[in-house]
Amino acid sequence: MTERNLSMLCDFYELTMSNGYFRSGMHNRITIFDVFYRSVPDAAGFAIAAGLEQVIEYIKDLHFTEEDIEYLRNKGGFDEEFLQYLRNFRFTGDIYAVPEGTPIFPNEPIMTVRAPAIEAQLIETYVLLAINHQSLIATKANRIVRASQGRTVLEFGSRRAQGADGAVIGARAAYIGGCKGTACVLTDRMYGVPAGGTMAHSWVQMFGDEYTAFKTYCELYPNNATLLVDTYNTLKSGVPTAIRVFKELGIENGGIRLDSGDISYLSKKARKMLDDAGLVNCKIVASNSLDEYLIRDLMMQGAEIDVFGVGERLITSKSAPVFGGVYKLVAVEDADGTVVPRIKVSENTAKITNPHFKRLYRLYDKDSGKALADELCLRDEVIDESQPHTIFDPNATWKTKTLENFYAKDLQVPVFLGGECVYQTPSIQEIQQYCAAQLETLWDEVKRFENPHTYYVDLSQKLWDVKQQLLKDAKR
Amino acid sequence: MTERNLSMLCDFYELTMSNGYFRSGMHNRITIFDVFYRSVPDAAGFAIAAGLEQVIEYIKDLHFTEEDIEYLRNKGGFDEEFLQYLRNFRFTGDIYAVPEGTPIFPNEPIMTVRAPAIEAQLIETYVLLAINHQSLIATKANRIVRASQGRTVLEFGSRRAQGADGAVIGARAAYIGGCKGTACVLTDRMYGVPAGGTMAHSWVQMFGDEYTAFKTYCELYPNNATLLVDTYNTLKSGVPTAIRVFKELGIENGGIRLDSGDISYLSKKARKMLDDAGLVNCKIVASNSLDEYLIRDLMMQGAEIDVFGVGERLITSKSAPVFGGVYKLVAVEDADGTVVPRIKVSENTAKITNPHFKRLYRLYDKDSGKALADELCLRDEVIDESQPHTIFDPNATWKTKTLENFYAKDLQVPVFLGGECVYQTPSIQEIQQYCAAQLETLWDEVKRFENPHTYYVDLSQKLWDVKQQLLKDAKR
Repeated sequence: MTERNLSMLCDFYELTMSNGYFRSGMHNRITIFDVFYRSVPDAAGFAIAAGLEQVIEYIKDLHFTEEDIEYLRNKGGFDEEFLQYLRNFRFTGDIYAVPEGTPIFPNEPIMTVRAPAIEAQLIETYVLLAINHQSLIATKANRIVRASQGRTVLEFGSRRAQGADGAVIGARAAYIGGCKGTACVLTDRMYGVPAGGTMAHSWVQMFGDEYTAFKTYCELYPNNATLLVDTYNTLKSGVPTAIRVFKELGIENGGIRLDSGDISYLSKKARKMLDDAGLVNCKIVASNSLDEYLIRDLMMQGAEIDVFGVGERLITSKSAPVFGGVYKLVAVEDADGTVVPRIKVSENTAKITNPHFKRLYRLYDKDSGKALADELCLRDEVIDESQPHTIFDPNATWKTKTLENFYAKDLQVPVFLGGECVYQTPSIQEIQQYCAAQLETLWDEVKRFENPHTYYVDLSQKLWDVKQQLLKDAKR
Repeated sequence: MTERNLSMLCDFYELTMSNGYFRSGMHNRITIFDVFYRSVPDAAGFAIAAGLEQVIEYIKDLHFTEEDIEYLRNKGGFDEEFLQYLRNFRFTGDIYAVPEGTPIFPNEPIMTVRAPAIEAQLIETYVLLAINHQSLIATKANRIVRASQGRTVLEFGSRRAQGADGAVIGARAAYIGGCKGTACVLTDRMYGVPAGGTMAHSWVQMFGDEYTAFKTYCELYPNNATLLVDTYNTLKSGVPTAIRVFKELGIENGGIRLDSGDISYLSKKARKMLDDAGLVNCKIVASNSLDEYLIRDLMMQGAEIDVFGVGERLITSKSAPVFGGVYKLVAVEDADGTVVPRIKVSENTAKITNPHFKRLYRLYDKDSGKALADELCLRDEVIDESQPHTIFDPNATWKTKTLENFYAKDLQVPVFLGGECVYQTPSIQEIQQYCAAQLETLWDEVKRFENPHTYYVDLSQKLWDVKQQLLKDAKR
């Protein structure tokens, strides 16, 4: 394999800016950056956070080799002292983040980085890449799993993924979102996501006739025989031949896989044929260009499918293949430690940032356990759960809501403090379970596919005041 | 970095089938597989082949470690002899492929693998992944470059890519398609694609005021100063401040970057302000949610843009994020070396394969040098260029065309023979140049964005006869 140092997976401007901070004596200035996103893919009501484990691995490994530095020297434009500085470069800052599997909403900090300017700047590209990619796929997978209403969903998309990581780490994210397994062996090997699979058309073609192909396979794998029945003709040849072989070998818990034709029609016909043959436990797997929209329709039509194998439309999030997380400076610290908020104004008001070193609270109803709203506060603000608490829409401040009988949860957890990792990464199974449990805290209205309810993400009065003041200052 | 053995990046069924071939004594049977795709993303007239270099690296490195084998043993279902066989596993077959940068059309073999059954089977997933991903991005990049009509296009999408390879190798493919460079440092470091970049909003925010930020940057990089002018207000603050700094420091060949607002309007206003200040050589870079459609409209409106920085819509091929290459068994060889064609029938006629060990010819007009049609032939067929040559539409055989004054080019080149790599990979610059030259051989009608002419991909009479016979046999 080709070696790659992911520390060099950054936009070139991270390096020109870093060299500039160094030359300007600003490289030790403490900066605070937020990661957030602006709109949910597929116009959905929420997304699922993922990618933190890869960010942690990356931060721990952050370094520049002598060859990397020599490459930069040859590119030109970099100061020799800066290049020397890179030789001992490592991350010394703090990172706070929402755990993987958490439902997240637009404009709230899903990660906050507090670090010297160069360190915070250099990690921008990879941090965004890791979080954007996996949050995209976890979110899409979760939609597909919800559409499947309890049927098993498996990730089958490696061959159509956008690169090797797209396949391997994408399958990891799909598992977080609720898929029960993957076809990708390397994802099982590296991340413990269970991999499985049985046969392709080539197996059937190799034997010349379907009966020999099926029988040979069933003799080899009597306990894991899902036969692909559409190589010649699904209902006239594939299903009857599968039934014949299952009966001959006494296999009761086999399966058949439908990979072309009208899945709804074929599954109902196949189910009847299997049942009539007494194979009521034989499972039907479907796997052709599926996504949440088609699965929802198949379910409505009463398709007899036990397992959905979902490929390209999951692993690329085909209907919405970009997760638009951004990384924005929200504050700098003076030499005495005073936090000075920063804002990015924009002619596009949706692109104006929420300034300052913040805290992200999720407010839950004590009786139902349901999430009521999220609130961004200044870092030192505490929400008093014993008092009625009034929140307001930051874009329409006359819209208020007063919460009682609620509790507040600080969503970000410390991940790095002073450059040391202080976070124990959960197992992938724990993350999947946590994600499923968190989804139970969301109202159905937020989870609707079409035109979902917009969940409240509000600013505290203090934060709102700071933002207004900065906007006025910028105007001057 | 986490180690990963890409040999394990395969669908689990490749391993269950391989174990099955081994157990059935079929593992040394020679098989022939074709890689081809069925429809062009974005309903375009052609795609650009890419990804061969990554396939070559992968095939050369193909192996299973002791830990990989132990992992498989623990998964269960695999025979111990098969696991022992994997210890010395390597690729011993032949691979033929069209060179990277070649325009390719649906249903023609862009790669053909001839190898013992297990070897050919195990490489399926990664071969498809590499070719699908890079062909997707090279094709998309080429569309964007053509829409830009000679303006420079740079790839800026790492942070929105689907995983690290999506960014790094995606930028490589974008360069093949005609991008002049990338923001991704690692792509430059690993593949020699020139990387560049200057500043983000955070640079401007760090300094508190735009003038200090711009002046500091220009003093550091007087020869590479592209100033981002939209942090506060593009026309009222950003552009005037950039002009002031350029004039103060005597920088004549700087640049400004527009990253929000109406790019067409802002670029025309900014161009006039720069020209009025005598900065006629100052370049304007635009970089907000661009793709071929928006660029085409901007060009029509006379936007004054010299460089397009294209991000998420290129690196994910957002409007069509899947390239549907498939890998299908087309023949097996008998013990005496006789090639026996195989077909995959389907209820969906578009999914019926072209059987047999084939050759792919492109037929060019001798006078214009333009490509007239592609023709799939049996492996031993030779096209006689000295005689009029009649081709016919395989789906409408009465549609014929007789070519004269033409020459035929065998598009696939040997890449591996007997497991040895016999192909000298060109430099990335050579591939880019080859791609640009090949595009000159296509008629404009094929290159149209909307409703392009369908290029002819025909079967020779002999191949057509074989296919019809196999379809008849399958029906029986």
